[in-house]
Amino acid sequence: MDDSTLVCPLPVNRHPLVTIAHGGGGRLMHQLIEQIFIPAFNNDHLTARHDGATLELGATRLAMTTDSYVVQPLFFPGGDIGSLAVNGTINDLAMCGAQPRWLSAAFIIEEGLPMEILGRVVQSMRSAALAAGVALVTGDTKVVERGKGDGIFINTTGIGLVDHALDIRPTSIRSGDAILLSGDLGRHAIAIMSAREGLSFESTVESDCAPLADTVRALLAAGIEIHCLRDLTRGGLASALVEIAEASRSSLTITESAISVSAQIRGACEILGLDPLCLANEGRFIAFIPRLQATQALDILKIASGGAMAAIIGQVGDPSPSPPVLLTTPLGTTRVIEMLSGEQLPRIC
Amino acid sequence: MDDSTLVCPLPVNRHPLVTIAHGGGGRLMHQLIEQIFIPAFNNDHLTARHDGATLELGATRLAMTTDSYVVQPLFFPGGDIGSLAVNGTINDLAMCGAQPRWLSAAFIIEEGLPMEILGRVVQSMRSAALAAGVALVTGDTKVVERGKGDGIFINTTGIGLVDHALDIRPTSIRSGDAILLSGDLGRHAIAIMSAREGLSFESTVESDCAPLADTVRALLAAGIEIHCLRDLTRGGLASALVEIAEASRSSLTITESAISVSAQIRGACEILGLDPLCLANEGRFIAFIPRLQATQALDILKIASGGAMAAIIGQVGDPSPSPPVLLTTPLGTTRVIEMLSGEQLPRIC
Repeated sequence: MDDSTLVCPLPVNRHPLVTIAHGGGGRLMHQLIEQIFIPAFNNDHLTARHDGATLELGATRLAMTTDSYVVQPLFFPGGDIGSLAVNGTINDLAMCGAQPRWLSAAFIIEEGLPMEILGRVVQSMRSAALAAGVALVTGDTKVVERGKGDGIFINTTGIGLVDHALDIRPTSIRSGDAILLSGDLGRHAIAIMSAREGLSFESTVESDCAPLADTVRALLAAGIEIHCLRDLTRGGLASALVEIAEASRSSLTITESAISVSAQIRGACEILGLDPLCLANEGRFIAFIPRLQATQALDILKIASGGAMAAIIGQVGDPSPSPPVLLTTPLGTTRVIEMLSGEQLPRIC
Repeated sequence: MDDSTLVCPLPVNRHPLVTIAHGGGGRLMHQLIEQIFIPAFNNDHLTARHDGATLELGATRLAMTTDSYVVQPLFFPGGDIGSLAVNGTINDLAMCGAQPRWLSAAFIIEEGLPMEILGRVVQSMRSAALAAGVALVTGDTKVVERGKGDGIFINTTGIGLVDHALDIRPTSIRSGDAILLSGDLGRHAIAIMSAREGLSFESTVESDCAPLADTVRALLAAGIEIHCLRDLTRGGLASALVEIAEASRSSLTITESAISVSAQIRGACEILGLDPLCLANEGRFIAFIPRLQATQALDILKIASGGAMAAIIGQVGDPSPSPPVLLTTPLGTTRVIEMLSGEQLPRIC
C-alpha cells in the first residue's frame, strides 16, 4: 500500500447513499469497488480484480477469499444459507485454481432466531464442508437486536493451496482462447425467486449450488493450461464477461445458441422480465482455455456433476482499451452485452 | 471431522431463541459454542478453544482468525468500526503468537448508508492496516434492505505467520505461571457506552483500541516463553480467565489490587452498575509466562503503548477438573470470579 495515493473519492454524486444495487454484482457495485475500496487498499492483490487473492509465502502459494451471505429465504430448493456459505467460498478459491483447505465462519444473528434454525444451518455447513474436504477451523458469533439484522448472516473466508505454476487471472487470457461454460444457467436465481415469491412451476427448480473445486482439479490434472476462471454468481454470465473483458482489456465474443438455459428457466425469465445472462448461479463457471485444449477441457466439464450442458460458448478477440463483449444471436445479428446496471434480484447469496 | 459425532444438540431448553446475551462473550455464548458449533465442526483447531486456529502447511505454521464487527455507534472516542475491525482481528492473530500479514474485509451495508460514512470507515481501515503493516487483500460487499441491517457490519479475517516453536494456547499453561495484564481495564466499553448514551465525563474516555502484535513480537524477541495469550474483548478479564481456566483445567488466582482501573472508569462503573472485570477492552491482553521470566516480561509490557499500568496480577494454581478463578480482595478475602452470564453492554465490537 502507498499512503500517497488519493483515497476514497466519493462515487458519482448521483449516489450519495448506498443502494441495494450497490450490492448487486453489476455496474454500481463495480463503481463502489473501483472508487472506494481499490484506491483505499491499493495493492496488487486487489488490482488483479479477481475472486480472491493469491499470497506468496516463500515457495508456497495460498489463495484467500471472503464472502458474506445474506440470502433470503434462508432455506430454498436445492440448498440453504449454510451450504451456500460453504460452497460459495470454496468456489471462489477454486476460481483462483486453489485447492480449498480451511474455512472460517462468522455469524451475525438477529435476536430471536430460533435455535433450531441455527442448528439446521450449522448442520448444513458441516455436511457441505465434509463433502468438499475442507475444515472449518475458527469462528465468531455476534447477536444484534431485533430489526437490526435479518435472521442470520454468515461470512466465510477460505484459504486454499495453489499447487501448480499457472497464473489464473483475467490478465492471463490471450487472443484466441476458447470460453467454456460449465453448465446451464439460472437455476439458483430462479430457485430463490420461486421460494421467495411463492411461485410454482411444473417441477421444482432447484438451485445449482455445488462445490466446483473437484472439476477445476480435474482440468488441472489433465494438463489444461487454464488462463482464467470465474464463477457466475451475482450479476451472472453477463457481469463476469464484462468484468474479465475490462480487467484483461480483451474483447470477447459469445454465441447465444451455445448457452444452455432450460425451458423452465427461460419461461420463468419471460414471465418475470429477467435476463438469463444476468441471473446468479452458484455452481456454474466460465473457463478461458487455449483453443487447442478446448475440446479436451469440455469433455472434462461434461462428466462433472451438473455439467451435462457444458459448452464452448465463445472466444477471446483482440486487445482493446475499451473492449466490448459481443453476443451473436441465432439470427446472426450481434448485440453488446452490458454489465447489469441496477439490481435484478437482491439478496440472492 | 468425524461424521459419526452426534451433532447440533440444541442448547438448554430454556433458550429456544437466540438472545442478545448469546453474543455477549459470557456463559451463554460459551454454551452456544460448546453445544452447537464445536460438535458440528469437531476438529482439533476448534477444540483448542483459542482465539484463532494454527494451521500447518509443511514446515510453515499459519494462524487464521475471523471476527465480525457490529459496534454501535460506528464512530466513538478513540476509534470507529473500521479501526476496530482491523485491530481486533490483528490482535486475535497476535494472541496466537502470529505476525499478522493479510486481511480480508467483507461489508454488509444497510441500504441508505451515506456513501461519506462508508468512505470514512474505509479510510480508517486503511490507516489501521498501514500502521500495523498488514495488507488488505480481498473483499466482499453485500447490501441489505433498510431495517434489515444497521448501517454497516464488517467482517475481517486474518492470516498471520507463526515463526517460532512455541505452542501458545490454554493447554500450554503450567502450575506456577505468572499472569500478566498489559494495561488498565475498561476504556473501550466506557467509551462506547458514553458515545451511545450521551454520557459525559470530566475528560473524554477514549477507547484503548490498538494493535497488540508488536508488543507480542517484543516478548518473543526477548526470548519470553509465552504459554498463553488472550485479549480482553467481550466478557472482559473475567470471561477470559474463566475460559482459560476451563480449557486448561487449571485454577487461577488473581489479586484485585494489582488490576489497574482508572478512577474515571471506576466511577462510571459505579454509576452504571458495571463490573470493570467484565468490561470489553480492545487493546489489552493477559499473558501466561513462566514465573522466572515474569519481571522481564513486565518490563516489556510497561514500555509498550498503553502499557504504563501493566502488572503481574496473579498466578496459575494446581490442575483441577472444575478449576475456580479466585480473586483476592484488598481486605484479604477471596471471591470466585464467574463468567458474565447475561450481557452488560451489547454491540461493543
